[in-house]
Amino acid sequence: MFIYRAVLFFFVLFLLCNLISLPLVAENGEAGWLRYGRLEPQDAELYQSLPATTVVLGDSLVLKSSQSELVRGVRGMLGRTLRIQANGPTEAAIVIGTVEQINKLEPRFQIPEKFQPDGYLLTRGVIKGKDCIVITGATDRGVLYGVFGFLSRIAQHKTLSVNDLQQPSAPVRWVNEWDNLDGSIERGYAGKSIFFENRKVRDDLTRVSEYGRLLASIGINGCDVSNVNADLHILDPDFIPQLARIANALRPWGVQLGVAVNVSMPKQVGGLDTFDPLDPKVSKWWNEKFDEVYRQIPDFGGVVVKADSEGQLGPSVYKRNPAEAANVIAKALQPHHGIVFYRAFVYDHHLDFNNLKADRARAAYDIFHRLDGKFEDNVIIQIKNGPIDFQVREPASPLFAGLQKSNVAIEVQVAQEYLGQQRHTVFIVPMWKEVLDFDMHVDGKRTPVKDIVAGKSFNRPAGGYVGVTNVGLDTNWLGNHLAMANLYGFGRMAWNPELSSQTIADEWTRLTFNNDPQVVQTVTNIQLESWPTYESYTGVLGLQTLTNITGPHYGPAPESQENNGWGQWIRAEKDAVGMDRSVATGTGYVGQYSPDVQKMYETAANTPDDLILFFHHLPYTYKLRNGKTVIQTIYDSHYAGAEKTQDFVAQWKGLRGRIDDERYHDVLAQLKYQSGHAIVWRDAINDWFHKISGIADEQGRVGNHPGRTEAESMQLNGYTPFELKSWEGASGGGKVVQCVEPAKSCTATMKFDGAPGWYEVDVEYFDVMGGDAKFRVSVGDQLVEEWTADRQLPGREPTADSSVRKRIKGLALRKGDVIKIEGISNQRDPAALDYVELIPLEQ
Amino acid sequence: MFIYRAVLFFFVLFLLCNLISLPLVAENGEAGWLRYGRLEPQDAELYQSLPATTVVLGDSLVLKSSQSELVRGVRGMLGRTLRIQANGPTEAAIVIGTVEQINKLEPRFQIPEKFQPDGYLLTRGVIKGKDCIVITGATDRGVLYGVFGFLSRIAQHKTLSVNDLQQPSAPVRWVNEWDNLDGSIERGYAGKSIFFENRKVRDDLTRVSEYGRLLASIGINGCDVSNVNADLHILDPDFIPQLARIANALRPWGVQLGVAVNVSMPKQVGGLDTFDPLDPKVSKWWNEKFDEVYRQIPDFGGVVVKADSEGQLGPSVYKRNPAEAANVIAKALQPHHGIVFYRAFVYDHHLDFNNLKADRARAAYDIFHRLDGKFEDNVIIQIKNGPIDFQVREPASPLFAGLQKSNVAIEVQVAQEYLGQQRHTVFIVPMWKEVLDFDMHVDGKRTPVKDIVAGKSFNRPAGGYVGVTNVGLDTNWLGNHLAMANLYGFGRMAWNPELSSQTIADEWTRLTFNNDPQVVQTVTNIQLESWPTYESYTGVLGLQTLTNITGPHYGPAPESQENNGWGQWIRAEKDAVGMDRSVATGTGYVGQYSPDVQKMYETAANTPDDLILFFHHLPYTYKLRNGKTVIQTIYDSHYAGAEKTQDFVAQWKGLRGRIDDERYHDVLAQLKYQSGHAIVWRDAINDWFHKISGIADEQGRVGNHPGRTEAESMQLNGYTPFELKSWEGASGGGKVVQCVEPAKSCTATMKFDGAPGWYEVDVEYFDVMGGDAKFRVSVGDQLVEEWTADRQLPGREPTADSSVRKRIKGLALRKGDVIKIEGISNQRDPAALDYVELIPLEQ
Repeated sequence: MFIYRAVLFFFVLFLLCNLISLPLVAENGEAGWLRYGRLEPQDAELYQSLPATTVVLGDSLVLKSSQSELVRGVRGMLGRTLRIQANGPTEAAIVIGTVEQINKLEPRFQIPEKFQPDGYLLTRGVIKGKDCIVITGATDRGVLYGVFGFLSRIAQHKTLSVNDLQQPSAPVRWVNEWDNLDGSIERGYAGKSIFFENRKVRDDLTRVSEYGRLLASIGINGCDVSNVNADLHILDPDFIPQLARIANALRPWGVQLGVAVNVSMPKQVGGLDTFDPLDPKVSKWWNEKFDEVYRQIPDFGGVVVKADSEGQLGPSVYKRNPAEAANVIAKALQPHHGIVFYRAFVYDHHLDFNNLKADRARAAYDIFHRLDGKFEDNVIIQIKNGPIDFQVREPASPLFAGLQKSNVAIEVQVAQEYLGQQRHTVFIVPMWKEVLDFDMHVDGKRTPVKDIVAGKSFNRPAGGYVGVTNVGLDTNWLGNHLAMANLYGFGRMAWNPELSSQTIADEWTRLTFNNDPQVVQTVTNIQLESWPTYESYTGVLGLQTLTNITGPHYGPAPESQENNGWGQWIRAEKDAVGMDRSVATGTGYVGQYSPDVQKMYETAANTPDDLILFFHHLPYTYKLRNGKTVIQTIYDSHYAGAEKTQDFVAQWKGLRGRIDDERYHDVLAQLKYQSGHAIVWRDAINDWFHKISGIADEQGRVGNHPGRTEAESMQLNGYTPFELKSWEGASGGGKVVQCVEPAKSCTATMKFDGAPGWYEVDVEYFDVMGGDAKFRVSVGDQLVEEWTADRQLPGREPTADSSVRKRIKGLALRKGDVIKIEGISNQRDPAALDYVELIPLEQ
Repeated sequence: MFIYRAVLFFFVLFLLCNLISLPLVAENGEAGWLRYGRLEPQDAELYQSLPATTVVLGDSLVLKSSQSELVRGVRGMLGRTLRIQANGPTEAAIVIGTVEQINKLEPRFQIPEKFQPDGYLLTRGVIKGKDCIVITGATDRGVLYGVFGFLSRIAQHKTLSVNDLQQPSAPVRWVNEWDNLDGSIERGYAGKSIFFENRKVRDDLTRVSEYGRLLASIGINGCDVSNVNADLHILDPDFIPQLARIANALRPWGVQLGVAVNVSMPKQVGGLDTFDPLDPKVSKWWNEKFDEVYRQIPDFGGVVVKADSEGQLGPSVYKRNPAEAANVIAKALQPHHGIVFYRAFVYDHHLDFNNLKADRARAAYDIFHRLDGKFEDNVIIQIKNGPIDFQVREPASPLFAGLQKSNVAIEVQVAQEYLGQQRHTVFIVPMWKEVLDFDMHVDGKRTPVKDIVAGKSFNRPAGGYVGVTNVGLDTNWLGNHLAMANLYGFGRMAWNPELSSQTIADEWTRLTFNNDPQVVQTVTNIQLESWPTYESYTGVLGLQTLTNITGPHYGPAPESQENNGWGQWIRAEKDAVGMDRSVATGTGYVGQYSPDVQKMYETAANTPDDLILFFHHLPYTYKLRNGKTVIQTIYDSHYAGAEKTQDFVAQWKGLRGRIDDERYHDVLAQLKYQSGHAIVWRDAINDWFHKISGIADEQGRVGNHPGRTEAESMQLNGYTPFELKSWEGASGGGKVVQCVEPAKSCTATMKFDGAPGWYEVDVEYFDVMGGDAKFRVSVGDQLVEEWTADRQLPGREPTADSSVRKRIKGLALRKGDVIKIEGISNQRDPAALDYVELIPLEQ
């Protein structure tokens, strides 16, 4: 009786928490796609006959979350509080429970379907003589997913009169968070860690629980919470109890906990003199360590391993191979049903640029293919979608077809490391799907990557999807509301890779905003156009993201690709550009694919335009399938892409009043910033290729900017010239001006000499870390605009990363007007200026 | 040259401030009706040919505000920054300046109109050969008003091709703020004072400057900043420099500073042994005091005086009359052109209830009429609109016609002291206009109050309008966005009392929200219906606001009208109700009106229904013009009024997405609260009259509430009974339950015995000051709602003031359900409960 009361108490507390967090007014993005916004009366009519009662069969944590989520969702959307009936049903009800539990209660209720683990069924049936809606699955987690699926139908105004069987495509659907114990997040763009701070697990794990709920709603069943560049102390005895608290927060949502480990831990923190995976001491250490873990976290999911990569120690120290390293850990996990995710992202970052045969793209296949069949059955090889590193476009990794006797998972990156870092809107699902749908033609048969990672192609017991997410404490999780479509899309795609990008974007928009047709159409359009657009102003034709690869991976810096050991080369020379990866004349990378795929990539003639420079070194004057030369395609794409970002702003403005103001303004500000930074990209890449190739833009745009006045050629007072390390990062060959002395006011002035009229005056300035400079713009004596440079952009000195366009609209200019830009430096921010551009406005 | 630069520097700083405060995103009400929201492109087309330049003639502070406001407004609405030209015009321009300045520049520019002080003209004309828009007036202040008028036209999408002459109806257009030096505000419902804190003027006067701007935009030219219950130290030597800072903040907006003084100051703080107004020492004291004031505030506007009223000392101490008291101060102000506002709100608050001839309504006329002609020319008698005190309906004060040789101003109250204290929406302009339009029939001629206060009727040199405003530090100034229509309306009405209430509400809505026809129609409808609605659920038939007049003047407490010396009696007896104020049989008050007006009010037969009980004592069974009895009219009105408030909520919901979310949600919450409190009013007044009269409601509603269960009849655990001092303040004869012990959990439970179905469960509870109790509602073991009682409502124990209705919608109830209300007391808030009401929902 006491226990019953205690359970009841916690259950009520649990419900309470859900009630409290019901979204009422604030549309700040925290609820993600689980808003449960109230339906208008006419839409709610569809659900008029919904039962008033819910009966849950069973009392596991996950089933209780299922029921409280059902109550919360229906309450939010329909304004009705479902009755929670302990026994029953004694009237029409929504019955939730596993097939086994339902059959125990009502043997006549037949469920003919065969369930995959985590699959679910929404149906109707007579239970105990009552007409019921039944949400069921083979497992508790399946039931939870069923509840989310049921609520998602209501949120999308879909009918409930269905027999809807949903099964996951693959058993493994994990996310990885690259969170460090100090609270920072590697490649995180949305604030500090929700898990850690000051080398401890955070006291308040509310956001972790909310995150678990978001993950469950899209079918994610595991979460690795620590950076793959692993912290050696993550499994220290005093840390495991802290990890147990995270596991407790995730458990009600059916999400298993994982962490990243380093193979050197037995030696570096374990007290051994070795970490040789074949040494029995090492094996014993791992066994004991995981016994310790599982005593405190009985449902611990497993570990991810990055070894011999980018400075991480690995088995090569002892001349052991990755299989030996993976297996010693895997065997220690086997008694507990844990998994080792072993990353195939292993390569030499000291390659010789002058060696035309050297090719980083080859590394994963070269290293792992020969080990196929050597991995324990609870090892999953975690393979990035492409052979390089989350670039804006890469071919599918050949390793997917290269491991037929090993479990594999595809690793994709929700965090937009190379895709604008959430400051640019890029919906990545279409890119991921191109890889998943890519046919590897193994043994001449249709072998799409999605079938391989699902374990179907080679009959593997495990496999699936890993998404690197890096959510943070920012209210909206990823720093940009629209970026959440990538997290949603990752989960939905992992569940069902047959869903189209269009369908996923449509679903996400309805759940995240509303079902207004104009909202759905506009948001879906922007999302679907966003990746091709980003590609077109960053790196086209398979050049990859032409960003600063030795720096923050953000703004344009094509020069950084070359002449270093990292191997992201594009081999741009005076007359030609691209990596020859053919078998015949290049690095031989193409040879890692099946013969059918080789046929497509081996020759430039057969290679699609969008990857042609990834595979071939071609003259700038080479005519592409699109009918234009390589160089003119580069120029045109960058102009078209930058232009398209302006169009996104215009499209978005059509949503004013159709979605909430808060997110409307947040996204508008983001899209405006992006549309300015796209011009920085456009000019940097085009200028760079123009300089190297010496070939003029047929349309005369590149290097020719009417209305633009370089800051360095203005009359300067206090400002001093400065040259960027990457000359292409600023207009006029990398020359900018800085107000170096701290807290000083400097000015740059110019005289207007054009036709009188209304103008937009755009100021290209730099917003660097370490201070918040101020800017003021005057025409004559009249102050017309001012702002503070307080964005969070990478870099401590002016680069293309920190270049920002301020647009001042509606200024009337007259011949002889003195336009003055005043910059007031602040701490380490020198209020740097690139140029001023005057754009006549049509009136 | 140095001075020129300094002036320029401050001018740029000044512009800077305006730029900074440009509203961008937040629609929190701080901008009031001066939002300057961006026009949609199709609307902006109307202003395509607007000149790009503005030339201001002159350099006074007010002219500079005029120009910076013009730039700010055009920039906000049209996205164009006008060029400020120092000399000129050298091209088409918007020229702003006084007639004199314009004629000096361009003698051929003829302005035929005769200007009143502060009047303005918007026109077009050729200045120096350029086609210009001209904004001009006789004074700088007129020019400023012209700029606001010009911008208002754009905000309302009106054409600028006009010759628009606007003149104020009266020279005096002041607001009074009842702010105390400690920062509190008497009858203030929107936070602390914007002027004072801790007996000092606040360091940050930003809000004062913003307030001055709002006032200027509606033509207000004076602001008394301190409570009429005057602080004796307001003119202390160390306080005058602080007042000067307030004057500095208001001056750029053409708003003169005033304060309230007490006639006893010469004795109480001035070091004299008397304050006898006829004593030369007293006269000298006032002379010297105002010399001191004007040395520091050269444009000080004057003082307001409340004397011999509600405990304030007055001339009666020395058996002097109000004229003698006013004149000694007035003479001291005369050399400086200052004004004395002498309040006619003087009455005896120790009247004998048992004396049927006693009548507070008579007081102002009795005291002041005989002094007509005795006041100095710079004295203005400040007369409340009605003879009592800002009640929901009163006849026009007879004193307006009783002072024909004195200056008079009408005093109205923007602060909703008796009108729901801004927690209820009441647009008061229609009420004010009824008084202004009321014809006093002086000497048998048409003599509307608006002509009297304008000085027109009796050829007085001064007179006008005073509004008691009591804005506070709350972001939206008055605590309720919709209440700002009263401040706007006060100013517009004072400027032009011929404007209809409809026009004023329409203008305000367009400026405050937008020009969407549905928004304009809905908001205007609600505003125009709000006063009759409030009247119908508070006090009808001229009974005045039946609130707690000895307490906070907020919730219903009709009992408090009677049996005390305050004289707000309604003389409700077993068989009849109302004050007989006739000459023939009553107090004789009607005799204070002109013979024509007396004809209307002397007999019940001629008196309009809406004031009939103000003038006559009538049986409950008396048949009104509306065809119903007095008592049935009371019952019906209160039901209809409460019903109407629900309709306001429904109307408002139609605006979702048509106005900004923030104000949408704020107002929705306010209207929902109001619709609950209107039921408290309805039941209290009806129950009270039902008990006194013993006459049943023909429709059977009064005292009969199906679905209602009194808390005191529920099963109580911890809760104890408590009886309200005013029994009508709670359902069931004033009985409620309290959870007295601090921080304790108490419960009240009931068993549901009705038909199964969907219900709305309404919980009537009390939210008292001094603590934030919590409430939780369960059905069976299921928590279905919870909230914290953290509203700011008057009272430290349960009364009708603090009674709040919590509506819980969408609960499915079944026979035998146990409904439990848990209250958790907090500090002095005992989580008191009145009743639970179950309302079946139509499905």
